Amino acid sequence: MIVTVTLNAALDTTYRLDALRPGDTNRVASVAQRAGGKGVNTARVLAARGRSVLVTGLAGGPSGQALRDDLDASGLPHRLTPVQGATRRTVAVVADDGEVTGLWEPGPEISAAEWRRFAEHDFPSALAEAEVVVVSGSLPPGVPVDAYALLLRRAAQLGVPAVLDADGEALLAGLAGRPALVKPNAEEARRATGAVHPAAAADRLRELGAATAVVTAGADGLFGSTAGSRWHTPAPRRVHGNPTGAGDAATAALAIALAEGLPWARATADAAALAAAAVAAPLAGDYDPALYRELLKASDAYSGPHPGLHADR
Amino acid sequence: MIVTVTLNAALDTTYRLDALRPGDTNRVASVAQRAGGKGVNTARVLAARGRSVLVTGLAGGPSGQALRDDLDASGLPHRLTPVQGATRRTVAVVADDGEVTGLWEPGPEISAAEWRRFAEHDFPSALAEAEVVVVSGSLPPGVPVDAYALLLRRAAQLGVPAVLDADGEALLAGLAGRPALVKPNAEEARRATGAVHPAAAADRLRELGAATAVVTAGADGLFGSTAGSRWHTPAPRRVHGNPTGAGDAATAALAIALAEGLPWARATADAAALAAAAVAAPLAGDYDPALYRELLKASDAYSGPHPGLHADR
Repeated sequence: MIVTVTLNAALDTTYRLDALRPGDTNRVASVAQRAGGKGVNTARVLAARGRSVLVTGLAGGPSGQALRDDLDASGLPHRLTPVQGATRRTVAVVADDGEVTGLWEPGPEISAAEWRRFAEHDFPSALAEAEVVVVSGSLPPGVPVDAYALLLRRAAQLGVPAVLDADGEALLAGLAGRPALVKPNAEEARRATGAVHPAAAADRLRELGAATAVVTAGADGLFGSTAGSRWHTPAPRRVHGNPTGAGDAATAALAIALAEGLPWARATADAAALAAAAVAAPLAGDYDPALYRELLKASDAYSGPHPGLHADR
Repeated sequence: MIVTVTLNAALDTTYRLDALRPGDTNRVASVAQRAGGKGVNTARVLAARGRSVLVTGLAGGPSGQALRDDLDASGLPHRLTPVQGATRRTVAVVADDGEVTGLWEPGPEISAAEWRRFAEHDFPSALAEAEVVVVSGSLPPGVPVDAYALLLRRAAQLGVPAVLDADGEALLAGLAGRPALVKPNAEEARRATGAVHPAAAADRLRELGAATAVVTAGADGLFGSTAGSRWHTPAPRRVHGNPTGAGDAATAALAIALAEGLPWARATADAAALAAAAVAAPLAGDYDPALYRELLKASDAYSGPHPGLHADR
């Protein structure tokens, strides 16, 4: 089983309308809602890949209930620690011309007792049958900035390898927890390390505590760094669609590789194909299975040692 | 007790942010939620005026629960018929420069059985102790277009005078239920009757079934028509603020007048002052009590017979 952790889960809401007119009253034509947040998206992809999953994290309020209901409806097992505050929403306003305007609520304030209950009880108990744990996304207010380091240390004590995918301070502080794998995107990796080239950033992420680092760089592919080797996986051919959730699909592929002990170069080729197939699916957490198989086949020809550092690139 | 009916209640959500950038991801700085819909706003004003109220209508889903929770927190008694679909939200995105962008969800689909349960059981039983019933706002999908006529006939059978405040087909069809008072705004009255001048529209609304009609025309004041008389109440001095909910405050004043048998000219002077004091309060359903008292005092000097029809005005 692969356990995902989403401390700042979201109820992702999509509003469709003809056009968004700022300063005016806009009648929404249709409303769709679904459970979201990076760990939830990753769990959805893992389940679609046939893996047993468990969604953990924090959820509260009526929006937290709607999130649990959607996980039930999607057949995704979950054990979310109840909190007093209401789970945040993200609203994506999609106009007929394809323009997407995002409105992201801040997360609910988490009390010290709620955080302790998750970190000291619910999280370790969820790891009982875990092969791998994926810890990803932002931290809601009230959760300590070194939350991920604490969870990763706990996972290590329990012998469960961990994947970390985060940004900013949560990423930097989390690296001290020595994840088996860290997987930020290029911008997040640059912010955390100061290194401009993703390959250099991957090296620096290992120095900061990760055993292996994979940096996803969109059309530039994936850059990996592990003990004694570095590699580069080109992106498959350009796919048009919704890039939200593509990184979470890549995380799912890498978590499977970690669970199965696959070679990293094969893992990142899988991640690149799955991420591109996720771009082709309209909703974060979904991917196009036919495109995935096609891209995976094509990718076998490309993977290889990375072309070296070009800091001026 | 005054009973209000809100068939398409809403969870009114306010997002504050620095500026709304269409096509971009916008981080919301703060989120506020409160129970809304025209009947809920009117009930809030009635309760603030010291009247006993009961909020009725339809509510469902997690947003319906949040709406009930807010009514409880506001001390507003409610008996909302549960429905399967989720109560709609309205999202008001308020930027630092004061620009307000509204996103209005459509209402939930109401089943025939849910509508019957409200119309045949919950509504008549809520009227047991009612002095007046206020029926206002839009109809959610699935509710028949002549829903208000049916409710008004039922109220008449039970001897409860009714106020109708609606728009479009719901208003036109509702008039056949012969409300004691109809109170649309000038634009709604024009759409329903074709009469351009609010005074002419008020006359026409009586011909269509209302015993008394009051048309609110913003800065132009209120135009009344009842058996054997017409009158005009000028608006008090211009007040800057949020006009949403001002009409619902006027409805509250008129419902009180109906309950107490006050003369109509006095009722509309009260309504004009209360509506202006509602504009001065930032949230729909609230009003500025000091401003209300001040405007009510000043209005005594102004009310009188209306200045006649000027269709070319």
